[in-house]
Amino acid sequence: MHVAIPLYPRFTALDAVGPYTVLGFAPGVTVTFVAAAPGPVTDDLGGLTLTATGAYAGLPHPDVIVVPGGPGTAEAMRDPQLRDWLVAARPRWTTSVCSGSLVLAAAGLLRGRRATSHWAVRDALAGFGAEPVEQRVVTDGPVITAAGVSAGIDMALTLLARLRDDETAQTVQLAIEYAPDPPFTAGSPRSAPPGLAERALTLIR
Amino acid sequence: MHVAIPLYPRFTALDAVGPYTVLGFAPGVTVTFVAAAPGPVTDDLGGLTLTATGAYAGLPHPDVIVVPGGPGTAEAMRDPQLRDWLVAARPRWTTSVCSGSLVLAAAGLLRGRRATSHWAVRDALAGFGAEPVEQRVVTDGPVITAAGVSAGIDMALTLLARLRDDETAQTVQLAIEYAPDPPFTAGSPRSAPPGLAERALTLIR
Repeated sequence: MHVAIPLYPRFTALDAVGPYTVLGFAPGVTVTFVAAAPGPVTDDLGGLTLTATGAYAGLPHPDVIVVPGGPGTAEAMRDPQLRDWLVAARPRWTTSVCSGSLVLAAAGLLRGRRATSHWAVRDALAGFGAEPVEQRVVTDGPVITAAGVSAGIDMALTLLARLRDDETAQTVQLAIEYAPDPPFTAGSPRSAPPGLAERALTLIR
Repeated sequence: MHVAIPLYPRFTALDAVGPYTVLGFAPGVTVTFVAAAPGPVTDDLGGLTLTATGAYAGLPHPDVIVVPGGPGTAEAMRDPQLRDWLVAARPRWTTSVCSGSLVLAAAGLLRGRRATSHWAVRDALAGFGAEPVEQRVVTDGPVITAAGVSAGIDMALTLLARLRDDETAQTVQLAIEYAPDPPFTAGSPRSAPPGLAERALTLIR
């Protein structure tokens, strides 16, 4: 079982590493970071450099694709090599985290589908013929999209249960001790204190 | 504000990248991955290579240290360069994720302190004079330890509230849309179905 996670400059690290960890812990799953050519790719904060060990051409038909989001999405949406690979790959599952869904949308892969994204950009999906849904993880046919950044962990557990079975997903959940207990309940615009969304937007642009 | 995250071979990626993302999103916080010498370090699954951009010698007194865990902990506990740096650094906050607390313990930094770790190895803390606590995040003086892998996100939000204030932590929580909603409730040995712990152990050894 091959999972490919494309990297592009200014991706958000947790978008990629959450699903990488969940899927990579499952027996028999190989996760490869890919780019147009192998090499280092630096994230949005500039502090983390991940190595793409594979090229699009070397992994033309992975079983699963996970597209991370981040401020680099705007450029990634216009990258013909990434788009051509996404369109031709026809994996069993096409998935995204955060604004990664905009990359899928720009490639025409969300037309007519229900999908989600980071709360700050979710409505932009409608411009590509998708139906934006306010939900942490949205499954529509062979496409699973997740909300912002940390939602990739929930998405990957949902995906793993479909790829294998519930028990495998639960086993990984226990291995990574994912019994989340955030010290605050500010993780969505609905639960956050008033005015916080405006402040949060300054951190992600 | 400088945060240093030491990397060692066979660390668990999410242990490091969870806190990196939370802390790195906060304004004015610089997070640097460090090692004995700058260069690539490969994780426990073998699929992810992160670049340490700093050396211990170049960051002798960071404000915060976050030690990730992983199967490489056993060797990291015996690494004299890492230990000497940890002991001499005297940061404002010394923190760990998962079995990273064993590295702190081996350096003598948890003696007489309440601390936690991944559920599979938590009891081993007692052998180093620490008091193992079954809790997701444990703060004792200037030391904060977290449970397994994903608990680093909760730890980092707790830490950020102490470093700055509750509102800053909540703003980052909203920016990374951390309103967790796992599809199963199997994230701790207490909540997981019977027999799952034995199966999870086979994934992390």
